[in-house]
Amino acid sequence: MSVSTAVEAYNRLVAEGAITARPGSGFYVAHQTAPMSLSAVGPRLDRAIDPLWVSRQSLEADGYNLKPGCGWLPASWFPEQIIRKALRNVSRSEVDTLSNYGTPLGLGPLRQLISRRLVEREIEAAPDQILLTESGTQAIDMLCRFLLQPGDTVLVDDPCYFNFQALLRAHRVKIASVPYTPAGPDVESFASVLSQENPRLYITNAGIHNPTGATLSSAVAHRVLKLADQHGMIIIEDDIFADFEHTPAPRLAGFDGLDRVIEIGSFSKTLSASARCGYIAARPEWIEELVNLKIATTFGGARLNEALVYTVLSDRGYRKHIDSLRQKLEKARHHVAARLRCLGIEPWLEPRAGMFLWSKLPASLDSADLARSALSKGVVLAPGNAFSVSQTASDCMRFNVSQIDDRMFETLRSLI
Amino acid sequence: MSVSTAVEAYNRLVAEGAITARPGSGFYVAHQTAPMSLSAVGPRLDRAIDPLWVSRQSLEADGYNLKPGCGWLPASWFPEQIIRKALRNVSRSEVDTLSNYGTPLGLGPLRQLISRRLVEREIEAAPDQILLTESGTQAIDMLCRFLLQPGDTVLVDDPCYFNFQALLRAHRVKIASVPYTPAGPDVESFASVLSQENPRLYITNAGIHNPTGATLSSAVAHRVLKLADQHGMIIIEDDIFADFEHTPAPRLAGFDGLDRVIEIGSFSKTLSASARCGYIAARPEWIEELVNLKIATTFGGARLNEALVYTVLSDRGYRKHIDSLRQKLEKARHHVAARLRCLGIEPWLEPRAGMFLWSKLPASLDSADLARSALSKGVVLAPGNAFSVSQTASDCMRFNVSQIDDRMFETLRSLI
Repeated sequence: MSVSTAVEAYNRLVAEGAITARPGSGFYVAHQTAPMSLSAVGPRLDRAIDPLWVSRQSLEADGYNLKPGCGWLPASWFPEQIIRKALRNVSRSEVDTLSNYGTPLGLGPLRQLISRRLVEREIEAAPDQILLTESGTQAIDMLCRFLLQPGDTVLVDDPCYFNFQALLRAHRVKIASVPYTPAGPDVESFASVLSQENPRLYITNAGIHNPTGATLSSAVAHRVLKLADQHGMIIIEDDIFADFEHTPAPRLAGFDGLDRVIEIGSFSKTLSASARCGYIAARPEWIEELVNLKIATTFGGARLNEALVYTVLSDRGYRKHIDSLRQKLEKARHHVAARLRCLGIEPWLEPRAGMFLWSKLPASLDSADLARSALSKGVVLAPGNAFSVSQTASDCMRFNVSQIDDRMFETLRSLI
Repeated sequence: MSVSTAVEAYNRLVAEGAITARPGSGFYVAHQTAPMSLSAVGPRLDRAIDPLWVSRQSLEADGYNLKPGCGWLPASWFPEQIIRKALRNVSRSEVDTLSNYGTPLGLGPLRQLISRRLVEREIEAAPDQILLTESGTQAIDMLCRFLLQPGDTVLVDDPCYFNFQALLRAHRVKIASVPYTPAGPDVESFASVLSQENPRLYITNAGIHNPTGATLSSAVAHRVLKLADQHGMIIIEDDIFADFEHTPAPRLAGFDGLDRVIEIGSFSKTLSASARCGYIAARPEWIEELVNLKIATTFGGARLNEALVYTVLSDRGYRKHIDSLRQKLEKARHHVAARLRCLGIEPWLEPRAGMFLWSKLPASLDSADLARSALSKGVVLAPGNAFSVSQTASDCMRFNVSQIDDRMFETLRSLI
């Protein structure tokens, strides 16, 4: 072994912190760190079925778990080669992109591209009305800080994406809910909850609703906006599933012209969930204030992620990837729906797009019980009440058709 | 021109959103977006000298501005080649790293590496006591949410990093301050403000203090912790300048054993400010709760950035880069201090490390006036009162020695 090999080995160990160099004395083994604590080992069978339950179970699951309850595609469904190429591309960027803070609004060309893509969904937003964030969740979080005072009431759909509830709890606000129908929120209930609870804000999905897979009709969109106007309520429309749609459903933000509706989105569902990047499209004067909040709470933007996302979105292969993804999902939805029906599990509707099948279990089954039993067999499910503010969805389960295989069906069959 | 070239051109334009394809009909020019609004063009001479002023001026400055008031190194001082190599390396990662959400705590090997590096500063934190965040600022923000209720009082140094004030305002808390001495907070004032104001939390810097460049003495560390114990006050120690130090100064977190002190850090100052990644080291039971808060407010971690940061930190070239950076900064501090003295500007102390010189202006000058005049000449300065809760630093200015050149000195000379 040559001296240079030994020196290289020592240098690597120093870089790793495993050994330390004492000048004039030699190399010494570094202090050992305490062992990993055992608190996070093993599934948490005793955890209540609360809005954080499914998130933690899914995010903490290792490679051996099945996650039909999670809200994302398997890694192999992402545009792997395009991301690899984009990373190589970014590695050749100018040094500022690699090292420096971004501007407060975020990468200009990406905001221009988002602006053009929003037009496809009939949302007009100039690039300066678009603020980049570190994720879709962080976009909603920042808006909640901007818009809410502790004690305010916020309206969500029932069922709704479970993390809306977790997020709103962190803002110390009251949560009201409105039943969701296959065409959007139930308009009569919506009118009465606005009169009774006077919510400051309504948070909902654009395009494909989570967990139901439903899409808003134009008529419901019109009535929802009319009621919001009457009551001075602001709306956040979460559009993170936009790229799954074949034909865009009506957007509240498009009807409203970004007056009282704020559009948020991200690229976690179809581009990459590890390159965090989201956006807010809103009134210019709100964006101006949100910039201050962004600096105060995160200082710089995720410039490198923005460069990566821009490079992938600009790659002509990305649209092709999305086209094939939509077809793959359509096939999977039909296939999984048929197999679920064989088990007596009935999809609430056949969604036009997306990865979710919101489904009714056979009458004898409780979804929380089923989720707990499945977890002991290494399968993470998404029980209905995790999505339901009113806790009226114990007979429902959300299935992610991209994360389902024979083992999941075997497990389900053994438990039903 | 071949057909395939034209098809390629059309595909790129579709990918960019500049044209849209209508199946069976052809390609059409997409809706044009509204023009960039003019609201953000030109320096904002009329903005008050508040804690956000310097941040916005610095972050929004274009390539033609000088930024001796900013808090970061020029891009050319970062380890450019190591970052490029690391990005190529990350482009070959397993597909999960490229596409999937990370685990809630964040990349295991990076947490182990941080754990070992903390030991060098005599802070013992097992990898499971370390939670990765999207930045140092986001780490403090998350801790404030975890620890504070609106109306609580938080103690900061006077002067302190201006963004602490902006961040605390977003949390609707009262801000108290304690004068900072060359050896840490003034202990007598510290004792009396704890008795009178009963702050829930004290936020300070570890290692090198921002803006003064001072370092905490062991004696002051001991007394601060004793007083914090007596009053049940928690401390956040912001260690983002750690890699600048030749010899680590005492850490409150090390003395205290991460009992009531929480250590946070990031890699923005020496590795990259565009690859956002920070961390929190704290009691295990606090980390457990912070994981829930992280999921609720950001959902996934910045997995790709974590992989990049880990790759750079593990590169044996990184330590060499840091060594040469320290020497470069030392030289720049001496050089800039001498030139400032020629203008009658006197550094408050000679810092042992880092990029800042906190300096007293000649008696006739007000730092806010000087900053406004300099801005009209394209020079962004950091006036003292942006750092001072008590507004008693109008005669001070923070200079970043890495961002100073002849043009800055000429501008200063012309204004003094």
